[in-house]
Amino acid sequence: MRIRPATPADADALWRILEPVIRAGETYPLPRDLSREDALAYWLSPAHEVHVALYEDGDREAMVGTYYLKANNAGGGAHVANCGYMVAQDAAGRGVAQAMCTHSLTRARARGFRAVQFNFVITSNERAVRLWQHMGFSVVGRLPGAFEHPTKGYVDALVMFRNV
Amino acid sequence: MRIRPATPADADALWRILEPVIRAGETYPLPRDLSREDALAYWLSPAHEVHVALYEDGDREAMVGTYYLKANNAGGGAHVANCGYMVAQDAAGRGVAQAMCTHSLTRARARGFRAVQFNFVITSNERAVRLWQHMGFSVVGRLPGAFEHPTKGYVDALVMFRNV
Repeated sequence: MRIRPATPADADALWRILEPVIRAGETYPLPRDLSREDALAYWLSPAHEVHVALYEDGDREAMVGTYYLKANNAGGGAHVANCGYMVAQDAAGRGVAQAMCTHSLTRARARGFRAVQFNFVITSNERAVRLWQHMGFSVVGRLPGAFEHPTKGYVDALVMFRNV
Repeated sequence: MRIRPATPADADALWRILEPVIRAGETYPLPRDLSREDALAYWLSPAHEVHVALYEDGDREAMVGTYYLKANNAGGGAHVANCGYMVAQDAAGRGVAQAMCTHSLTRARARGFRAVQFNFVITSNERAVRLWQHMGFSVVGRLPGAFEHPTKGYVDALVMFRNV
């Protein structure tokens, strides 16, 4: 797997990853009907440092994931980063999220952040909760019923945190 | 005390409240050198419902506080609101924050929100922590060292939550 900064030429491949995640509405608090234009404007916003993960598949490279890194707050909160990760539907279970998380922690450290905070890890996304704990994140908060899951109803979301 | 929606004509009075809070850098994770223009653009952003609190002082009304109310997230998180409150320096201790909080909870309920979440209550702001607890908010998260206070160094921030 190779991870490199996103470029404007990645828009189509990024949208192929973002669209099913947004339409499913199970893991991010984003409008399920978000347009391609608004989704890409959000993911590629100027405040986001965006990377893409590429997997060599024969003689071509397929984009299997993407993440953003940004300051979670400004001013006295600017030393804590925030990241979001999305993995291509057909690439689940290949360690893509873990590789991107490792990469993002290195990037956060390089940029002088002291910690990374996830603001909204939905408890029904059990694979993510387990992975972030495996990656050294602690649950520092639990938001009761803060996410309305399309099939499970109101579920809790977690705030997770680790120093870098 | 009277609380009403903010209007564009309130800009000068709003800035007199915002400026000392932002310059002090002790209670909000905002850049201490934020310009008047950027501060007002943030506080009066289209996503914010903004109110101002007025106190009758002889034959004139003085603005003693302001708050915003917004959805804390979109999509499956859009049923939880977020608010921010600022009180004029010379109006501390008069119940302005409490009156605005009560007003904001009523507004949140009227708009169909199910809960209000404060994402970043700085622990050194003891008066605020006590007031929000008095107003029925629970501490649901603690962000270790997430705020760099200008004189106290790194202090924790709290996530607080209550149903409405």
